Amino acid sequence: MTEHVIELTKQLIEQKSISPDDKDCQTIIINRLKALNFTIETLNYNQTKNLWAYHGEGETIMFAGHTDVVPAGDENKWLYPPYQATIDNEGNLYGRGAADMKSGVAAMICAAEDFIKQNPNHKGRIAFLLTSDEEADATDGTIKVVEELIKRQEKIDYCIVGEPSSDKTIGDQIKNGRRGSITANLVVHGIQGHVAYPHLADNPVHRFAPALNELISTVWDNGNQYFPPTSMQIANINGGTGAENVIPGDLSVQFNFRYSSELTDEIIKQRVEQILQKYNLSYSLRWRLSGQPFLTKQGILTNTAQKVIKNRLDIDSKLSTSGGTSDGRFIAKMGCQVIELGVINATIHKVNEHVNCDQIIILKDIYQRIISELLA
Amino acid sequence: MTEHVIELTKQLIEQKSISPDDKDCQTIIINRLKALNFTIETLNYNQTKNLWAYHGEGETIMFAGHTDVVPAGDENKWLYPPYQATIDNEGNLYGRGAADMKSGVAAMICAAEDFIKQNPNHKGRIAFLLTSDEEADATDGTIKVVEELIKRQEKIDYCIVGEPSSDKTIGDQIKNGRRGSITANLVVHGIQGHVAYPHLADNPVHRFAPALNELISTVWDNGNQYFPPTSMQIANINGGTGAENVIPGDLSVQFNFRYSSELTDEIIKQRVEQILQKYNLSYSLRWRLSGQPFLTKQGILTNTAQKVIKNRLDIDSKLSTSGGTSDGRFIAKMGCQVIELGVINATIHKVNEHVNCDQIIILKDIYQRIISELLA
Repeated sequence: MTEHVIELTKQLIEQKSISPDDKDCQTIIINRLKALNFTIETLNYNQTKNLWAYHGEGETIMFAGHTDVVPAGDENKWLYPPYQATIDNEGNLYGRGAADMKSGVAAMICAAEDFIKQNPNHKGRIAFLLTSDEEADATDGTIKVVEELIKRQEKIDYCIVGEPSSDKTIGDQIKNGRRGSITANLVVHGIQGHVAYPHLADNPVHRFAPALNELISTVWDNGNQYFPPTSMQIANINGGTGAENVIPGDLSVQFNFRYSSELTDEIIKQRVEQILQKYNLSYSLRWRLSGQPFLTKQGILTNTAQKVIKNRLDIDSKLSTSGGTSDGRFIAKMGCQVIELGVINATIHKVNEHVNCDQIIILKDIYQRIISELLA
Repeated sequence: MTEHVIELTKQLIEQKSISPDDKDCQTIIINRLKALNFTIETLNYNQTKNLWAYHGEGETIMFAGHTDVVPAGDENKWLYPPYQATIDNEGNLYGRGAADMKSGVAAMICAAEDFIKQNPNHKGRIAFLLTSDEEADATDGTIKVVEELIKRQEKIDYCIVGEPSSDKTIGDQIKNGRRGSITANLVVHGIQGHVAYPHLADNPVHRFAPALNELISTVWDNGNQYFPPTSMQIANINGGTGAENVIPGDLSVQFNFRYSSELTDEIIKQRVEQILQKYNLSYSLRWRLSGQPFLTKQGILTNTAQKVIKNRLDIDSKLSTSGGTSDGRFIAKMGCQVIELGVINATIHKVNEHVNCDQIIILKDIYQRIISELLA
């Protein structure tokens, strides 16, 4: 019987743990890990609860994840109450966090339980890094724990983040990196004036137009084996007083880069400034770096995960770096191989978030087999 | 003595006639014109007072103007209270409307008085069209009276609008036309989405960028003898949800043309649509025409005005079509020659609006001489 993973997923869903409020999620998990003789440490910052736990010593496989969820939105639009885990007659488990990522957390805990019960004297070390602040600011969660672990010179070899990485069927996609994200906050300065006297004004929209055209048509890179080409998108553009006869004094433009490991934030900044200077713009520019790109190249961890999935499901799991940012970006700084592997992400953050129970059971099984391959 | 024109200007300034409230301006004027045996007609629409008055018959010279003013703004910034006409010791008359255009109105009334006293049986007709709605919406003022006069088949040969047309010294500039003004309200439609998945969205800012570049770099015309080249200015541009990770669904752009008599509003509309269609944009476009261009070519009226100014001041008065719109655009529809001729416009609409008393006296004299040239 593997249904303990379904029971644990349901238990976690029933904790209304909206970031950074963990409710009792980590307490439930701690109690289970204590029963397995894990070394337990809580590293809490402000409202955020973080858990660092391990069992064994030596070569380390760490599972990482989060116990917090995004809000349910309009609960009236849900087929079932979002904080009552409900299984319909097709075996779909409904609830906020069913996919992102309480099923993943339950699967990693139960995989460790089952592995340790079968291999009480396993070589190597199994570790967990859980946080209640991933969906919100992510400032007091994984990033802080990683800083502490680096300070202690903790060595991690492999990390599996239990985020919902699958696309159409469980295991069809593994994330082996994420693009970087950086945002430019640009203000182009002009001189306000009356549209009837344009020679007395300096229209910042007109000034910026050719630079905008170049920013948009620039090929920033061609991506590489793991990453799609870097993408730049204008997110916000605002200029004008609202009056139809006034030339605006300033133009504000905010644009975001999702960038591959071919570029760095420094190169992007330089190239943008070159374009702005080429057109002789008077401007102010403020950058916000959300995340550096990270990449785990094809190697022991990706090979092991792909082999296990092939054996268990007879499918070829694809490596991908698409999508937004994740806590993997912080963990990668520890120098370990990092992948994200979890259930199908189709309903995450939406109403009626759900995942099929079979998927959860398979995920637990895949995790357990990966542990066996790496540590047995 | 010509100081009756200063007295009348002061009397009018002391009426706080903020559009469309005329206070007693037109009553004061009507009483003076009645004394000269003018035929008087009031044509009031909503809150707006309009005056149509004439003396004599045949070839007609009409003076046009407005009795309303814009608000004073922060009265504490004024050297003298804006609705108390105050003359400083350099002969500058301060007050809201001193330049725009109560001095002009006083000058035209006093010029007619002096001319008729000297030429009680003059040939031709002297007429006045005054309104209290020029500075605000201008919907119940001159435009309505002109419609009525056209319906009656009233014929006007020459019209002098008493707007402050002069640049550095009184009489140095006559406006013999105005550019047209038309505004485009454009919405470029895209598909909103997450910046991490640009292939699922369609960024309207990116779509619009090359069209923007072409709109801005287009030479719409080269102007002509009387008009500067047509000018297009982006007044407002707004797109984005405010979030840095969302591709906007729509982009709103408002742009205004000040156009010469080389173009028509229809040609502008066609050329803009051609550019938008060339770049395959999905868009909505709404136009607002504020005023068609009008032009009085060099002829009897401009020649007479220039000759009188040359004789009186020994300066060569320049013809110009610069600046915003004026009620001249409505009067031009009657098929008459129209010029604007008035005091220096340096302080109009500003705090401490003022005009030198000498200018007002000279303006009255110029008006009187033009009447003499045309009707004597």
